[in-house]
Order: sequence, then C-alpha cells, then structure tokens
Amino acid sequence: QNKWGYRILDNVIRGKFQGKIFPINHKEKEICGLEAYPSIKDVPDSVDLAIIVVPGKLVPRVLEECLEKRVKAGVMITAGFGEVGAEGKYLEKDLAGIAREGGMVFSGPNCNGLISTACDLSAAMGSIFPPKGTISMVTQSGNIGTLILSRGVKNSVGFSKYVSSGNEACLRSEDFIEFFGEDPETELIISYIEGIKDGRRFFEVCKKVSLNKPILLFKAGGTDGGARAVHSHTGSIAGAGDIFDAACAQTGVLKCDNLDELFDVATTLLRQPLPKSRRVGIVTSGGGWGALASDSCERKGLKVAPISKKSIEALDKILPPWWSKGNPIDLVAGTHQDRDKIFETCIKTLIENNETDSILILGLGLMLELMEKKKKDRTLSEIEERMMAAEMRLADVILRSLDEYGCPIITATDPNSFDKPEENPLFKKLREHQILSFSDTDRAAAVLWAMYKRYRYLEKWGTTTT
Amino acid sequence: QNKWGYRILDNVIRGKFQGKIFPINHKEKEICGLEAYPSIKDVPDSVDLAIIVVPGKLVPRVLEECLEKRVKAGVMITAGFGEVGAEGKYLEKDLAGIAREGGMVFSGPNCNGLISTACDLSAAMGSIFPPKGTISMVTQSGNIGTLILSRGVKNSVGFSKYVSSGNEACLRSEDFIEFFGEDPETELIISYIEGIKDGRRFFEVCKKVSLNKPILLFKAGGTDGGARAVHSHTGSIAGAGDIFDAACAQTGVLKCDNLDELFDVATTLLRQPLPKSRRVGIVTSGGGWGALASDSCERKGLKVAPISKKSIEALDKILPPWWSKGNPIDLVAGTHQDRDKIFETCIKTLIENNETDSILILGLGLMLELMEKKKKDRTLSEIEERMMAAEMRLADVILRSLDEYGCPIITATDPNSFDKPEENPLFKKLREHQILSFSDTDRAAAVLWAMYKRYRYLEKWGTTTT
Repeated sequence: QNKWGYRILDNVIRGKFQGKIFPINHKEKEICGLEAYPSIKDVPDSVDLAIIVVPGKLVPRVLEECLEKRVKAGVMITAGFGEVGAEGKYLEKDLAGIAREGGMVFSGPNCNGLISTACDLSAAMGSIFPPKGTISMVTQSGNIGTLILSRGVKNSVGFSKYVSSGNEACLRSEDFIEFFGEDPETELIISYIEGIKDGRRFFEVCKKVSLNKPILLFKAGGTDGGARAVHSHTGSIAGAGDIFDAACAQTGVLKCDNLDELFDVATTLLRQPLPKSRRVGIVTSGGGWGALASDSCERKGLKVAPISKKSIEALDKILPPWWSKGNPIDLVAGTHQDRDKIFETCIKTLIENNETDSILILGLGLMLELMEKKKKDRTLSEIEERMMAAEMRLADVILRSLDEYGCPIITATDPNSFDKPEENPLFKKLREHQILSFSDTDRAAAVLWAMYKRYRYLEKWGTTTT
Repeated sequence: QNKWGYRILDNVIRGKFQGKIFPINHKEKEICGLEAYPSIKDVPDSVDLAIIVVPGKLVPRVLEECLEKRVKAGVMITAGFGEVGAEGKYLEKDLAGIAREGGMVFSGPNCNGLISTACDLSAAMGSIFPPKGTISMVTQSGNIGTLILSRGVKNSVGFSKYVSSGNEACLRSEDFIEFFGEDPETELIISYIEGIKDGRRFFEVCKKVSLNKPILLFKAGGTDGGARAVHSHTGSIAGAGDIFDAACAQTGVLKCDNLDELFDVATTLLRQPLPKSRRVGIVTSGGGWGALASDSCERKGLKVAPISKKSIEALDKILPPWWSKGNPIDLVAGTHQDRDKIFETCIKTLIENNETDSILILGLGLMLELMEKKKKDRTLSEIEERMMAAEMRLADVILRSLDEYGCPIITATDPNSFDKPEENPLFKKLREHQILSFSDTDRAAAVLWAMYKRYRYLEKWGTTTT
C-alpha cells in the first residue's frame, strides 16, 4: 500500500473515474477489487491511456507492449532518467522516439500524473481532487503543481485539466499549452516552468494562445542556486532571466513571482473585469494600512492618484471631519452603523467621477470578528447588532458594484486578526462568488498589476473585450 | 458603549490591570462598575498615567488639569491635530511644550494606546491582549501595531511593552527605543515608522541600542503614493528611501519589507542562534520546492552552495539512488518510515562536514496531513502508523539539532496543503518551542537573511556572542 502504483490506482478509484480501469501487475490477480492483468496486452478492451509506474529498467518493455496494444497516450511516472545524468537523458530520448514512431505520445518521465475533472480522472501521486472548473495547468514539477491545485481545493476554485510534464522527453509544456488554447473547457492556462527545450516554439505557441486565453507562468531557476536545483530535479537548463522576462512580456504571458500570485491572479482574472488604467482607489479602515497599500501598489507600477476636489467634497458629506481627504480614503474610526452605505458611496464616487479604474478595499470583516468575540462575553447591544448587519451587507455592495461599474474590486484583510479567518461569514460569502480576500496588500497589488498588464497587452492587439 | 473612551476602559478592565483605575467623566458617576470623577483633580489618589480620549477642543483643559494633578505621563488618543493641517500641527506642538514645562510627557496625539504586559495594562483601542514576553514595540500607526500584536497572539509569541506614538508631538519613536534599550524586560525592539522628525538622533539612538538588542524596523511611505498616504495619516514627511536604507544598515537596524517578515524575524532571532555565513543547506521532500527555495535564498543574497563529494557519499548510503546528489538535498519519494533518522543524518552531515551554517527544511508535516485524511476512510496499516510516528519525531530532531550544532534551522511548508494548518500536531509542537513553520520559501529566506545581516553587524563591532 506504500507503492506509488498502488497509490495512483487508489486515487483513480477514489476520484470515481467514469471510465474503465485495468490494473496491470505480473504477480497479483486482483488489486483494489479490480481484476489485474499480467501485461497491458492481456486487457480485453482497447486502452486510451497508460499510466506507467514500473521500475526504470522495465520501462522500455512496457512501452513496447503499449505500442503493440496501440495505446495512443501514456503518462510516464517513473523517475531516474534525464535528471540523474547523461545516460538517462539518452534513454528517455530513445523512448520518446520509439513511442512517436509507434504512434504514441507520453508525458514524463519523472512526473506525478494527470487529472481531468470532466471525466473525474485523478491519476496522480498526490491524493488531490480539485473541483471542476476552467483552469488548466501544465507543470514541470508535480510537487509545485499539487501546491497550486491545493489552493483550488481550499478556495473552491475549479480546474479542468492538470498535467505534470516532468522531464518532457516526449510531450512538452508548449504542446499542452497549445492544446489548452483550443480546448473549449479551458478558459485560463497556468504553466510552471523549470526550463524550456525549444524557446522559439514555446513562445510562438504562447503568443497565439494568449490573445484568447490568459497564460500565467511561474518559473524557477532564476538564480545560480535555483538553476542547479532545477538541473538535478528535471534535468532542465534554466534560461537567462532577463531574456525570458522580455519574451513573456512580448507574447502576453503573465509571469508571476510566486504560487500565491499565480493562483490569486488566475481566480481574479476569471471573475473580474480588467482595469483600464493604472489608477487604484483605496478605501481603508485604518490609516497605516492605507499607507502600506499605497506602497504596495506604487512599487508594482500602479498609481494611487490624488482625487479631485469634487470627489473630496462629495465624501465630506458622508465621512467624519477628520477623514483623510484624499486617496487612500481612510474612513477612520466611527461610521460603523452604516458602513455599507459609506463604502458604496466611496466606490460610486471614485468610479463615477472617473478618479480611478480599480478599487482596493482594506480591513473587511474585522468588525464581524470583533463582535463575534464580544458575543462570547455578553449579548450585543442594538447598535452592535446593526454594525454586524452593515458589515455583512458589504458583500452585496461589492457584488453590486462589480456588476454596475465594470471595474475590478479587490479586498485585502490581514488574517492574523481573526481566530479562524476561513470561517468569517463575510469572506465565505465573497468566496462563494469566487472573490478572494487577499492576506496582504502586496498580494492584492500583484493581482491588480497583472490584470492591468493583461489589459495593456490586449489593447495593443486591439482585443480588449475579454 | 460605542465610544472610544468606554472601549479603552473596557479593555483595561478586561485585561485585568493590576493597578487602580479612575474613570473621568463630567456626567456619569459610575462607569463599568467603577466610581467616576468629574475631573482628574478630583481623584483621591496620585495618578501615574492619564489616558486622554476627550474631543480635541477639550484636550488643552484636560492637559492643564493633569499638570495640576502632577501626572507624569499621558497617552493622547484624541485625533484631529497635525494630521489634518498646519493649525493642528501648531496646536500639538504647543501642547507638548506646555506638558514638558509642567513636568509631563505624553505619546500621541492620534494614537491608539499603550500596553504593558508586566502589570497587565492594555489601554488600547484594539481589544488585544498579547501574551507576556520580551518583545517591545513602538509604532506610529496603531492599526499596524495591532496587526503585529495579533501575530503574537496567534503564535503565542510574547510582548513586553507596546506604545502607539501617533503624531509624536512630545515623545518620539527614538525616545521609546532608547528606553527599551535600557529596559531589562525587553530583549528585542520593533519599530513601525511613517516618518522621522530628527533623523540624526533617531539613528544615534538606534546605533547605541542595536549593539545589545536587535531593532527591527518597517517603514511606510517609500513610494509617492505611500508618502501622500503617510502625510494624511500621521502628518509625517517620509524620507528618501535609499538614504534611509543606508542609515539603517550603518546603525544595525534590520529593515523588514512587510509585517510578516517583522514578526518572523523577531520570533526567530529570540529563539535561534545566528548563522555564521551565507551558506544555506536545503533539505526538501519535493524537487520543485527545492528549486523555489534556492531562488528565494539566492535572490536575498544567501548562497545555496554545492556540497562536497564526501557529504554526497555519506548521503548516498541513506538515500534512494535517485536522490538529487547535491544541495538542495531532495529526499524524493520513499524513505518514509525512517524519515526522522534520514533528516537527522542530513542535518548532521551538512553541519559536521562544514557545508553550511544554516538549514532550511521544506515540506514538514505533509505526511501527517495525508495520513489524517486516510484515517477518515479506514484504519491505517502498520507501515502508515510508523510513517506518522516518524514524522512526529521530526520535531525532536529539529530541537536536538538546534541544541547540538548552534546553527539556525528554519522550516517552510505550504499551508494550502492542510485542511487546518494551525492544528497540525507537528507544527503545534514546534510552535510550543517558539519555532514557526513559515508559509513559503520567500518568508523563510527573508528570516535567514535578516539573521545573517545581524551576525555580520555584530561581527563588525566584535560582539558576535548574542
């Protein structure tokens, strides 16, 4: 039960795969309650996909048997090829040649599997079952891929296809990106890259695909130490950083700096409209956090622009006299009973007066947490109950404003102020509508910046209707 | 019950302040069960500290009354002074002059209070009660200060004193840093800065203090938008970024890039020895994550150095043949039943063969999570039970190695792979020993880099014994 072959089979069964499953094992007659066959050639049916998890020295023979069986596609989990040395590199190249000649393609070797949620197939080493959705991912590291999928599981954000491409002896990242580009079930593509074997083709594919679907990419190996680690991991040669970055920018690939950014940007791009300029309006319940958020935004290239006298006068009417009188709009203390109306007026004023093309809201949900804590000691006063209700209505304010104004609205709240941030009812409600509450202002700013880059790229090519 | 004066009094009472409390109110005779007095002058006892939360126009009169009562110290919560315009700036300067002449000092105005855990005083707007400990903090933003304290509450990391300094009309950040430097209850100092009024004195104080106690600083206002936000928040002028950074480096101030870093570095500096070089050894349970961690480390300035043939041969004896044969040490799949012994040997080999002066461990606790999930479906096999036990023993391996080798050992594990990361028993056990499990490799690298900078600074001044 500790062998990878068993574990992957177990995952396929637990995922409730809709098709037929044929375990192959030269010793056992039955595995996990399924009839097992000594060779794939003995399977009494045609086979669409072979998951190969045998020891390295058996791989050539198993591949030959797949070809005899006319299997068209394989996933080669087995490790110990190109990543351990020159000999392995030749061997995996040979295997790819043999497969192609026989009319078969495969991902791997040294990969962790494949997931396709449409047919409930989870043929991967990690026991992970992402919800159905429209994100597809190809990753050169199964480890990293699983970490991205786990964000989907946690936040109920769905995936369509997941492929771990490993050493890419046969099929490469760009092959999958090209396929995802034409796949009607895929709306957005994620790629984790350690190295690229054919840079020209990779970026040609990306350029073609990115006009229709966003491609988000994260790359390891940008430093000397990272490049060495990459080499021993998937046998890839990591390319020069600056050239790679420029190629991404030219072909519309959104390069992300970390896994959180990858997931945050993907989720937000699928849900929210693109900002039409760099200008961000910040609405905050604390001045220090407004300053932090301004730094986060401007460091990225966004603009926390001053706002007009007209807007300041409009806000003077609803905010206490000591409000910040500028952008960020610091609501300061007070005004809690009609917080929802005040937030709505702030958003409306910023957008209708054309002060900004995106909104960043800070400190949502804190009022609820404070009141929940008080509830433990005593019953809440009427005023406090009204404060809680107003805070909950902020979800509707955001959803309504998103519909009405066509501007992205991002929120960030420090999770450390919450006993159990995931259980906060306001965050839950927003999450049901695929709106994430980011844990810090840097993350929020990274999302807005990526979305603005997407807008700019599409605008350049005259296709800003996404 | 919604007024700030009431809320702060409520917090003082809930925090179980060990001294006497005298509410002052010109209308009420009793507040929160305590006898209230119309003026501080009517209090039938001497007063050590006055918390001033009256409306702005009453502040001068209240201050006069404090002086008559010979109160030595105050906290001026009231806002609406220097941050709203020139007039307020003059007024707060006047107040400071009057106070000083009368033998009184105060923090604020426009601040959120003061906490001293030794006497259980929590006189702050935020209802937060940090555990007792040896970190002291001065912050120009109460909002940000509270976010830092909340990290302490969440991770059971203790604080000694917390001061929100607000507009700093009278006492300034450097006054508190100087005091913390001499305070036997303070081992480490945190400062959040929006602007500095007297840069020379600020850094002279820091230089003197930082030789004995680490000073961690986070600063807002590094961008144009941030500087504008800072100005409307506490009326400060944020200084030029590069000059400020250089002054920090010269005076031993560890400047942090975000709140997480501030807290992570503080906690780790208090618990772990300093690394004596840039060299980091990485031990990982996944190759992709090893590559990410290498990039994180080297981007900061650390070195994921290649290791000697001697060490590789030593590790060949205990690791599967397809291990990475270098640094990062990728344990790859398998080896789960004696994971603790293997980890211990990796650490021992790296340190005893002088390959590295710090260790970064990736992916701890994942095995426990996997097994917990399996437990829900069925009883675990004997092998699986042994795997769980080995994983739990990793806490002892880390604690033992910390004692034995005098090198910092940092861990990072992606929390998204866990249903409830905070409840993972391995993380809990480590947290009980003040060892944090960082949520990503960038955070872990930032901590090691700050610790190395501290080592270098102390080495320069010949005091590397901290």
